[in-house]
Amino acid sequence: MKEFELIARLTRSLPANKSVVVGPGDDCAVLDVGIPERLLLFKTDALVEGVHFKNETPPDKIGHKALARCLSDVAAMAGTPGAALVTLGLPANFEPSFVEAIYGGMNSLARRYEVAIVGGETTSNPERLLLSVSMLGWVSRGKGVLRSGAEVGDAIFVTGELGGSLLGRHLEFEPRLIEATWLARHFSIHAMIDISDGLAGDLQHILKASRVGAELLSSAIPINREARARGRTESSAKPPLLAALTDGEDFELLFTVASRDAVPLLDSWKKRFPQLTLSCIGKITASEGVTIRDKQGVRPLTVHGYEHFS
Amino acid sequence: MKEFELIARLTRSLPANKSVVVGPGDDCAVLDVGIPERLLLFKTDALVEGVHFKNETPPDKIGHKALARCLSDVAAMAGTPGAALVTLGLPANFEPSFVEAIYGGMNSLARRYEVAIVGGETTSNPERLLLSVSMLGWVSRGKGVLRSGAEVGDAIFVTGELGGSLLGRHLEFEPRLIEATWLARHFSIHAMIDISDGLAGDLQHILKASRVGAELLSSAIPINREARARGRTESSAKPPLLAALTDGEDFELLFTVASRDAVPLLDSWKKRFPQLTLSCIGKITASEGVTIRDKQGVRPLTVHGYEHFS
Repeated sequence: MKEFELIARLTRSLPANKSVVVGPGDDCAVLDVGIPERLLLFKTDALVEGVHFKNETPPDKIGHKALARCLSDVAAMAGTPGAALVTLGLPANFEPSFVEAIYGGMNSLARRYEVAIVGGETTSNPERLLLSVSMLGWVSRGKGVLRSGAEVGDAIFVTGELGGSLLGRHLEFEPRLIEATWLARHFSIHAMIDISDGLAGDLQHILKASRVGAELLSSAIPINREARARGRTESSAKPPLLAALTDGEDFELLFTVASRDAVPLLDSWKKRFPQLTLSCIGKITASEGVTIRDKQGVRPLTVHGYEHFS
Repeated sequence: MKEFELIARLTRSLPANKSVVVGPGDDCAVLDVGIPERLLLFKTDALVEGVHFKNETPPDKIGHKALARCLSDVAAMAGTPGAALVTLGLPANFEPSFVEAIYGGMNSLARRYEVAIVGGETTSNPERLLLSVSMLGWVSRGKGVLRSGAEVGDAIFVTGELGGSLLGRHLEFEPRLIEATWLARHFSIHAMIDISDGLAGDLQHILKASRVGAELLSSAIPINREARARGRTESSAKPPLLAALTDGEDFELLFTVASRDAVPLLDSWKKRFPQLTLSCIGKITASEGVTIRDKQGVRPLTVHGYEHFS
């Protein structure tokens, strides 16, 4: 918690200027740079060896993940990525071929979304590899989606299936850029975030920013088959629902729309993205906090999950 | 040299898109984002404990230096800074007050140049502090200055006095933003760079990018009094001229203008910046390589300095 308190203290008194539309605290910073139809997005995200990936992680997947995380943040604003800079902190004994393979993973993802990698730098970080990506992007003025727009009565949606990402998906996920811009073009998305900390934790970010609460429907939470399989075979594993709520690193989109848009959205989505599940998992409430409803009743949900009925 | 070779290999095949005006290899990347009168600058720069600053360096000076280095790169393009993101890699035992003091140094410099700090992130980097700044800036279309524009016959200028920066100046320097934009507004600056590797090394960057050579005049190189004093008192110290040529971290501007502009520039400069030395230190030549002329004759100059006459 020391880190969260520190961030809160640091961000209270940061220098601003007239270009700042959204400063710290959303998926990207948003800047008005004087273009009538667009706003600029600005984001940075770092991966550290032994913290965000293992020593034995294949280098192309490290590169993919580093860029994909930034792209996922641009998606969460309903934005389009533009250009990136890459900062590499290299241990003394680095292998050039390993670094080239990192770039291989990054470049291949960048080309898929027409992202230019326009430079960066290498520096020494003696004990471990560190990879930081800085990203510029764009969002149509009036189409950007913040965390703070959720309204009482909104339906809450999530793309894909959640849980068990750390078994491998977190190194290979596809950022939901196409889905997010399609959503913002065709529907009024009130609030959106990408799930990095876990559904329960990231939902809290939307709720705090929007000053509302939520009720989730247990049976509607989409659980990934990896989380299900692990729950069945490993006695020490989290129950699948808890994994879907708290595992994190899913990089799916979590968003809210007015309840009247819920059914038209589900219909249009199925036609446009037949391969990707979209689930309505609950609704925004006026009373703060999150509850989850199942056959046994309604329980409070925290970032760490729910309490079992005793 | 492994690092330079690696960078050369990596930058050969980076993804680009139609916004890229200048990719890797200059002080900043330059992007055309569709604004008629301006181009976007994009830069990132990292400091690592034990590599770029010492364990005992005061934290406000670490923060100042981290931001000032990025601002110096914006200055080298004759640009104006806009917004920054800060990535902090924190060791396990970090002191919140230490991190706040880093931000203190950074914020105070940012406010002086109306730079907004719009977020970033903290992450774990267990063994040492790492501080990376990402910077956006702007340059008037047609007023940006690259490394590649030096022409045969140009006069070579440098601001301030060089050498001995690591005795303390490297932690407190003022980026030459005001001077650089003034230069670009009033004169046709052909090529410019900020001196981070040392005059001899950074001049090579201009020469390589411009495919020209240079001849420097030994007696015209402005030597900082710290470099002079050290040369007098420490028998093991570099001779002052060698220190001025190779010490690095001066963060002064090195640039070229047509020879006919040299005298008018010196006159206007003295009126506008009476406190800051501007020195004409030589000229651009057609033959590649750098030579330095003194009373004894003309000698080749390398990034490591000159060879003594034997």
